[in-house]
Amino acid sequence: MNELTINLKTNSATPLYEQIYDYIKNDIQSGRIPYGEKLPSTRSLSGYLEVSRSTVELAYEQLLSEGYIESRPCRGFFVSEIEELYYLKRAEPQTGRRRAEQRSYRYDFTPNGVDLKSFPYNVWRKLSREILTDDRTELFRSGDSQGEYSFRSAICSYLYQARGVNCTPEQVIVGAGNDYILMLLSTVLGPGLKVAFEDPAYMQAYRLFKSLSYETVSVGMDRSGMCISQLAGAEADVAYVTPSHQYPTGTVMPIGRRLELLKWAQEREDRYIIEDDYDSEFRYKGKPIPALKGYDADGKVIYLGTFSKSIAPAIRLSYMVLPEPLLDAYNKKSRFVNSTVSKVDQLIVQRFIEEGYYERHLNKTRALYKSRHDVLIEELRPLLDICSISGEHAGVHLLLTFRNGLMERELIERAAKRDIRVYGLSDYMIQGTKETSRTVLLGYANLTEEQIKEAVRILADCWR
Amino acid sequence: MNELTINLKTNSATPLYEQIYDYIKNDIQSGRIPYGEKLPSTRSLSGYLEVSRSTVELAYEQLLSEGYIESRPCRGFFVSEIEELYYLKRAEPQTGRRRAEQRSYRYDFTPNGVDLKSFPYNVWRKLSREILTDDRTELFRSGDSQGEYSFRSAICSYLYQARGVNCTPEQVIVGAGNDYILMLLSTVLGPGLKVAFEDPAYMQAYRLFKSLSYETVSVGMDRSGMCISQLAGAEADVAYVTPSHQYPTGTVMPIGRRLELLKWAQEREDRYIIEDDYDSEFRYKGKPIPALKGYDADGKVIYLGTFSKSIAPAIRLSYMVLPEPLLDAYNKKSRFVNSTVSKVDQLIVQRFIEEGYYERHLNKTRALYKSRHDVLIEELRPLLDICSISGEHAGVHLLLTFRNGLMERELIERAAKRDIRVYGLSDYMIQGTKETSRTVLLGYANLTEEQIKEAVRILADCWR
Repeated sequence: MNELTINLKTNSATPLYEQIYDYIKNDIQSGRIPYGEKLPSTRSLSGYLEVSRSTVELAYEQLLSEGYIESRPCRGFFVSEIEELYYLKRAEPQTGRRRAEQRSYRYDFTPNGVDLKSFPYNVWRKLSREILTDDRTELFRSGDSQGEYSFRSAICSYLYQARGVNCTPEQVIVGAGNDYILMLLSTVLGPGLKVAFEDPAYMQAYRLFKSLSYETVSVGMDRSGMCISQLAGAEADVAYVTPSHQYPTGTVMPIGRRLELLKWAQEREDRYIIEDDYDSEFRYKGKPIPALKGYDADGKVIYLGTFSKSIAPAIRLSYMVLPEPLLDAYNKKSRFVNSTVSKVDQLIVQRFIEEGYYERHLNKTRALYKSRHDVLIEELRPLLDICSISGEHAGVHLLLTFRNGLMERELIERAAKRDIRVYGLSDYMIQGTKETSRTVLLGYANLTEEQIKEAVRILADCWR
Repeated sequence: MNELTINLKTNSATPLYEQIYDYIKNDIQSGRIPYGEKLPSTRSLSGYLEVSRSTVELAYEQLLSEGYIESRPCRGFFVSEIEELYYLKRAEPQTGRRRAEQRSYRYDFTPNGVDLKSFPYNVWRKLSREILTDDRTELFRSGDSQGEYSFRSAICSYLYQARGVNCTPEQVIVGAGNDYILMLLSTVLGPGLKVAFEDPAYMQAYRLFKSLSYETVSVGMDRSGMCISQLAGAEADVAYVTPSHQYPTGTVMPIGRRLELLKWAQEREDRYIIEDDYDSEFRYKGKPIPALKGYDADGKVIYLGTFSKSIAPAIRLSYMVLPEPLLDAYNKKSRFVNSTVSKVDQLIVQRFIEEGYYERHLNKTRALYKSRHDVLIEELRPLLDICSISGEHAGVHLLLTFRNGLMERELIERAAKRDIRVYGLSDYMIQGTKETSRTVLLGYANLTEEQIKEAVRILADCWR
């Protein structure tokens, strides 16, 4: 082949070399230039196309790099043999399918709500600006895979003061949310374990362990929390618990049960307890219940904490405290995994804690949620002849269990007809079903006092 | 028991109710108040201690919540039976052990470097400030688990223009770094698969799949990349490849080999290819090599991209493009996993791309790296009688293979004695060992042209 008639567009945004490259590539792909064909020399093609020789050379080099042509010394450029050429078809774009939007309700008693109006935007913006100004290159260099040491130290101080947990920064691992932290933990613990969950449970963790291919088992609860006798019979390796405020029932695990649980873990060297301390900050009677981890003298408790619940859901920042016996495994098997939280975010939250903003924010939201909580309890009073309230001393939701014959499904449906969303306890049950539940959850973090009053009046009307 | 002599400190920062609670709790824990003992009534204790009755009530309520005491109707408060009381000892803080600092070198030719001086701090700060000002509550509400739709759309446009990849936002999943993305992918793919790696390999991914308990197999490479005949014999389910620029050898997989690889995947319904397109942005001859994903007409290629390499390591932002056949599995098994990237960071990078800053930043760093690359090649020229250069057309490192009898270990040691760090190819080998390698890696992203000149002169001296 001595010439290639390429219609070059000199005023195009595509460089000339790229037009030549595209033309020849398409001809090879379509089979118009067959395998083994010799391409014109760069000199002859540049003369023919009236472009510089380096333009043609650049086009040939690109074809060479991508394997369309090959260079034979002293002979020139030849089309490569591409055995699977018949296979060469461009991937077409998939048709876009946006998922259906969820129905929105006038009043949504979501138990996962957070009041974002009280989020300290100005402080956040200020800290963010200061950090981006102060520190320059260091801030964007890759950080410690475990999380910044100074940030982990701040977490330790907070845990000691607020949760009675004694730990060192070496035991703390920072990550982008609980789900990720549990994924990372699974690489530390290794596969093939059986994980026991409270039932009803924090389903997000239950589903996560299932998706990580762990065997799971549900253990019933009595009024002190997870039943240890059932747990002992379940042959589990790990127990996932929420002792300070069981999710979703709100049960507080009393000291006796906590010690029984620790004793269960103590019986075998490779047994562990995962303590998910997800919302210990919000307690309305007395002071927060101390963490189980505070009594973990034998290194059996893996403690999980999060700022997503206490600051804002979009702050993807959780951490775990590994007990001493798991640190070796972490260092050997999982320490190489890069951190999932940017240094900027770690430093913002660190200063948020150290400069007292976190405590102030917690006090403010606790007071806010307490008022909403009190209004909700007050408004529910006229309904207490047909239902009872439980789990109301902490967190941001409570449970209503009905005695007037209405089942969960109907309670939800009647509320939905009046544009109010309430949540069924059965959503959190591993063994139970919708058919037997008479309990709904009402979260109040997201609603104003006025909205709560108005919504409960409607609920009282439709549930009678 | 009718009285408890508690030495209350009225001027203490600890509230009175908490002092009472602490005192009684300690006495129960130490066994000084035995099981079954009746506590004084709230009225009598408040009279005795000269505090308000509600103060004592609050202390008792806290003890009640934590399970230290129980209330018997019409009889009063009694110390609970806590069977495991002997077990109750506070966890002591572990002794802090900071890990040893790594040795630092005068010149470090790390292949993982990024020039952070060219990071557009002012733009970043501006975007960050604008985003935190514009949008308020929405920004801190929990986001789409897959990543924000608008951000995923921006990624699609970028992939189409820059990498020849056609995909929809529904196929894109955003996450905090490659390691996390691979963890998430493992929940989509499920357990029990065998993953094939190029050898030498990107060890971070290799170690990650091992830590996720996958069986792994290494497949040799020839000058076109992974050997398909070896791959075919390896009985792998997934092949992990870096076709546009093999890490660490720099090989570009030619079109023929790419099609063979696609054909391998096509042979069985559950075979997939993971294309890690980690640094396609940096190519110094012609235009970037198109992504393998661009030819994936049958939904066999899982594409991985990252902004950590092209913007800054501390930006924890990667993404994967799932082929259509895996979307169902993702939606069923893994979509519930919360996003690991804050909305703020997603919006900053989205605007960084959409407003043209990303392209400008890439052009700027590409030019910068190209100059350093050219200087390094030029300075190495006098050494070409004892070694040869490879993998130099793209990325931010090149390889030197020695013919003068020096082994990798000695090359590294001699350089270290002169305070220069170079990296052995054997660090990336799955099968190979230090004993046979004569190749070192020199990364240049982190060093100025002057530093490169100076360091190579020293290296030339010590490697002769």
